[in-house]
Amino acid sequence: MRDLEVVARAEPDLPVPVNQDPEKLSLEAVLDHRMISLRNPKILSIFKVQAVILKHFAEHLRGEGFTEIKTSKLIGTGTEGGTGLFSVDYFDTKVFLAQSPQFYKQAMVASGLERVFEVGCAYRAEKHETVRHLNEYVSLDVEMAWIDSEQDLMDLEVRILKDIFRGLEKDCAAELALWKATVPSDAEVERIPRVSHDRARELIGSIGGHKVYDVNPEGERVLCDWAVKEHGVDAIFVHGFPRKKRPFYTYPVDSRITMGFDCLFRGLEITTGSRRIHEYQMLLDNVEMFGLKPEGLSDYLSIFKYGCPPHGGFAIGLERLTQKVLGLANVKEACLFPRDRRRVRP
Amino acid sequence: MRDLEVVARAEPDLPVPVNQDPEKLSLEAVLDHRMISLRNPKILSIFKVQAVILKHFAEHLRGEGFTEIKTSKLIGTGTEGGTGLFSVDYFDTKVFLAQSPQFYKQAMVASGLERVFEVGCAYRAEKHETVRHLNEYVSLDVEMAWIDSEQDLMDLEVRILKDIFRGLEKDCAAELALWKATVPSDAEVERIPRVSHDRARELIGSIGGHKVYDVNPEGERVLCDWAVKEHGVDAIFVHGFPRKKRPFYTYPVDSRITMGFDCLFRGLEITTGSRRIHEYQMLLDNVEMFGLKPEGLSDYLSIFKYGCPPHGGFAIGLERLTQKVLGLANVKEACLFPRDRRRVRP
Repeated sequence: MRDLEVVARAEPDLPVPVNQDPEKLSLEAVLDHRMISLRNPKILSIFKVQAVILKHFAEHLRGEGFTEIKTSKLIGTGTEGGTGLFSVDYFDTKVFLAQSPQFYKQAMVASGLERVFEVGCAYRAEKHETVRHLNEYVSLDVEMAWIDSEQDLMDLEVRILKDIFRGLEKDCAAELALWKATVPSDAEVERIPRVSHDRARELIGSIGGHKVYDVNPEGERVLCDWAVKEHGVDAIFVHGFPRKKRPFYTYPVDSRITMGFDCLFRGLEITTGSRRIHEYQMLLDNVEMFGLKPEGLSDYLSIFKYGCPPHGGFAIGLERLTQKVLGLANVKEACLFPRDRRRVRP
Repeated sequence: MRDLEVVARAEPDLPVPVNQDPEKLSLEAVLDHRMISLRNPKILSIFKVQAVILKHFAEHLRGEGFTEIKTSKLIGTGTEGGTGLFSVDYFDTKVFLAQSPQFYKQAMVASGLERVFEVGCAYRAEKHETVRHLNEYVSLDVEMAWIDSEQDLMDLEVRILKDIFRGLEKDCAAELALWKATVPSDAEVERIPRVSHDRARELIGSIGGHKVYDVNPEGERVLCDWAVKEHGVDAIFVHGFPRKKRPFYTYPVDSRITMGFDCLFRGLEITTGSRRIHEYQMLLDNVEMFGLKPEGLSDYLSIFKYGCPPHGGFAIGLERLTQKVLGLANVKEACLFPRDRRRVRP
């Protein structure tokens, strides 16, 4: 006979069951009762996986000499124009929640740190109601100096992904098994093909049965299917994005294309990045070409006015990577307390 | 003769000098021209130190089996009532920026993770204009199950601080030397005295020349001076805070005092923590005693309704710890892009 101590009483009738496969529950029920549904071991395992991604992202970058930074999420103006921003009542004025730490990462590269990373919240006031969007997400941000093109950035992302996947295999075998998930091997990550945006459009157009001629969600799935078939890995880099599809600070190759890239993994864009413009005059010209006002960007422009090395960077969406590692149907499942157009609780 | 390549042109007349001791510059000038003043090696060194604090905080906790979490900063209601919150226009409704991840940390402890930590932004809409306040700061948050009292939490903080200080000595010798700063040794951290709130008030009152009878900024300096003199370490834990000074979720010892504590380091509060109430009925009683409405706390209360282990936690202010490690006059110096009542740029 053993002693039992009651540390706290608990009501017996749970608002959502915690001992059955979450696939039998509606996502609404899971998220409405999030405080309790997280007690479901299979649901909780998602966040053990996420913690291991966070760990290996940071450890890999520290190993390559990157310095972790923490920048403000309250900004006077948007990095990419004024749309898609949530506004905040800040004493007697209005400020906005940052869409990305883009400008700050660049300032820190130019400060002399040269290689920086940040793990922080990012906000998009978009009215999307899809399985791939969150209005608040965790952005795994990287920026580095002394690159030649987006190829150096894709090389870095390959090294980071290999470390993350290796870490998951080692630390999360049980959690991966619970979701019947596997992660790409080192050899597979090294095989991720790199295709130009022009070639990507051709592929999407030429693969029969798809009336999609652009890199959009349906196109992203087509490209990943092609990468599986041709290269044996469910991921692809698309680079050389057109200037009109990328922000004003993206480094141009010529009058038409840029050094911008995306990484698609298992049919979903998980990364956007680019080499950035580091030359003051070129940046001023681009600001004008994009119809923006230099006055509103004076703090940002000062980085380049006083000299800045060639550089670039990218951001990985933590929840999207988690979603695709585990094969979750909706990105909201990969966020502890997701925020969407209708949900701001618990 | 060697080749030189111009990677980018730079204007010669900097808005703020970057090659002299920052103590000769006004803080206003340093922060107004933050994009450029960060190029001052002595200013930049602050953030190398901060990155090492971040690293050792996370690594120490992972080593003790803690899981990193990322929780929402957009909340429907405040954790400690509605005052001091910034409001956000969120589609057709209003939400608030979180003051702390308190409720979420507790939900995760109860979910089965039992030991969690989070590094994230916290917001206080307070009109303070002091050398110790920021309206946006990085909170190093910890929460753990199966504790008996705040003593277990102070033990954990001692272990974390030892690791951080050891890490700084090892990785930041040059940066510490630049600021003529030293960090407490293992033996010193172990000697940090723990005094009750009652005893702390007595000490503040009895030490001549101070007309301060409470634990406030002046009192915090008096207590640290006392700790230096009596224990040879410039830090002190004050615990057993009165119920009326702590939030409703703080575990009571009796009708008057709680298991709440602070850690003061070099004259400044760097940590607040407590054992929390984990029993549903006790919590409901406290909600009522504090004049709060249970309806507004239903998500939070559900954690306890369905059973929760005994637990507690604390938060260390990243900028305050950085400030005190280096002996900076103002906490804003320890924040890359500080936000105060008047400053929301760059």
